[in-house]
Amino acid sequence: MVTIEDVAKKAGVSTATVSRVINNVGNVSEKTKMKVWKAINELNYKPKILASALARHRERFLVGICESERLKNMEKEKIVPEFYTVILTALEQIGEEYGLKFCKMNLFSPTECDAYILVGGDTTKEVVEMYRELGKPFLLLDHYIPGEKVDCIVTNGFDGAYYATSYLIKKGLRKIFHIHGPLNSYGFKGRYDGYTSAMKEAGLLPKYYEYDDVKNNMDDVIEFMLRKNDIPEAIFASNDITAMRIIKELKKRNIKVPDEVSIIGFDDIISAKDFEPSLTTLKVFKDEMGSLAATRIYELLVGHNVHPVMVSLFTKFIKRKSSI
Amino acid sequence: MVTIEDVAKKAGVSTATVSRVINNVGNVSEKTKMKVWKAINELNYKPKILASALARHRERFLVGICESERLKNMEKEKIVPEFYTVILTALEQIGEEYGLKFCKMNLFSPTECDAYILVGGDTTKEVVEMYRELGKPFLLLDHYIPGEKVDCIVTNGFDGAYYATSYLIKKGLRKIFHIHGPLNSYGFKGRYDGYTSAMKEAGLLPKYYEYDDVKNNMDDVIEFMLRKNDIPEAIFASNDITAMRIIKELKKRNIKVPDEVSIIGFDDIISAKDFEPSLTTLKVFKDEMGSLAATRIYELLVGHNVHPVMVSLFTKFIKRKSSI
Repeated sequence: MVTIEDVAKKAGVSTATVSRVINNVGNVSEKTKMKVWKAINELNYKPKILASALARHRERFLVGICESERLKNMEKEKIVPEFYTVILTALEQIGEEYGLKFCKMNLFSPTECDAYILVGGDTTKEVVEMYRELGKPFLLLDHYIPGEKVDCIVTNGFDGAYYATSYLIKKGLRKIFHIHGPLNSYGFKGRYDGYTSAMKEAGLLPKYYEYDDVKNNMDDVIEFMLRKNDIPEAIFASNDITAMRIIKELKKRNIKVPDEVSIIGFDDIISAKDFEPSLTTLKVFKDEMGSLAATRIYELLVGHNVHPVMVSLFTKFIKRKSSI
Repeated sequence: MVTIEDVAKKAGVSTATVSRVINNVGNVSEKTKMKVWKAINELNYKPKILASALARHRERFLVGICESERLKNMEKEKIVPEFYTVILTALEQIGEEYGLKFCKMNLFSPTECDAYILVGGDTTKEVVEMYRELGKPFLLLDHYIPGEKVDCIVTNGFDGAYYATSYLIKKGLRKIFHIHGPLNSYGFKGRYDGYTSAMKEAGLLPKYYEYDDVKNNMDDVIEFMLRKNDIPEAIFASNDITAMRIIKELKKRNIKVPDEVSIIGFDDIISAKDFEPSLTTLKVFKDEMGSLAATRIYELLVGHNVHPVMVSLFTKFIKRKSSI
């Protein structure tokens, strides 16, 4: 029977290193890994790991769910209607099956836990730094900060926007505008880039109007657009709320949707289906985000695949009546 | 003792649906999931799943590793020196622990397997369509096609490029150019976007020179750049091979690296460390890519977290002597 000691001897490393390679935990160089694997193969060593390792870890971990006051208020005031409620329900349900216990806390003043999930777009570089110093695994849920190299679960805005814009182009439309929220939001920026990329690849000119979702200045935005005599064939909006406000303003001015202008949103919020006209949009898989967050924080807790990754969920195009 | 039937009755759904929700498999609407979870909570139902479900699936799956001839030839001729060898070794080793058996085949003519891993950048929309029709799980390894919404494991080129460019800016440099390979490559495109984003955010003008890595026209590119009297303070290259060729051409013209021009590459290939001067670069975690591919294809095979996602690995900035 080949033992882990035999492998270590043949590879010229310690048994601890062999164990780290087999379980894919800790910091082992590529070169050492290749040596260990070669030894494992040559000796035909059969380790028992992974599935059994996962099953072994049936202890309960305490995971902090960290939200800002602003986010909680937005939920309360139904500005982000059911978005985070669905994500967090899924997270807690699936997490429960991994033996995770959850505890809600303020993003800016976390109490002691085994790991943390930082929810929404209020996490800054400074906040990431603070959590790094706590020395426990953590991940960003529905947010990312470029250059920070921190684990995160996000929606692939680029891909959804690219798909929707390409769809309109394939339908023969050329004058397609993008009305978007503030681009310091990771979500809005990805959608902006996806729209831009699809337009440029088709040799079309991207055209943007920025909209302030707190002030709700859609009346001004549409007025400004029309005063320039700039009537698009389609508008891709950076989310459903924005799309609905665009439609409202166009209606006020007797511009018909979708006959004169096609509108596509993003998110597929509950009211998108019952809106008049019902909204063509990209469905964000909120419950899947929660489930993936539970899976990922568990992996980090048990030390499996610990190299930081961005997991981004693809959206689904839902064709309804607001577009061609 | 609460049973799955009790949960189904309370939620007003079938037991099969409850089971699908608990195991997070198959197509169940968010609304139904919320109902089932509510019933589980109210009844305090305790399902046995996940870790045990994973352990249960100890059957052997056959996974096809699908490579194009072009890719195999590039490895043979050491154009992509050890890149895919490391990825695939890790994939097979970690996959083994999940009970996966691997079988190499031609990307364009797959034979029957339980799942497929499509390696490298030769996968097109048409190839994806062909694999979709096979009806088995599959994922793209080190590649993605915008709008295709297919599972993939990639390196986060955007983030690495953003980080490296921001690093140069923080060091006080302003005139930073990007020399890149063909942008239809998913990898090069991400790095291009990351560089652009960091430059624009700092209010600097991005400047690009395209380089043809098959023709190796670096002599012409550098000649053209210098003839315009356009000498940068730094060049971010889209990979290490490109960076090395840039340095060679600059040396020929007596331009000193890093004293006059800082150079940063991407990949951290083995020869980067021993190059003269040693190359500052972004390390790509090839073995981690392989390990994540094994984990992901296994998840898809056992039907866990089946919603398609892009998993992109963050790189690590390695400061050596070719840059400030």
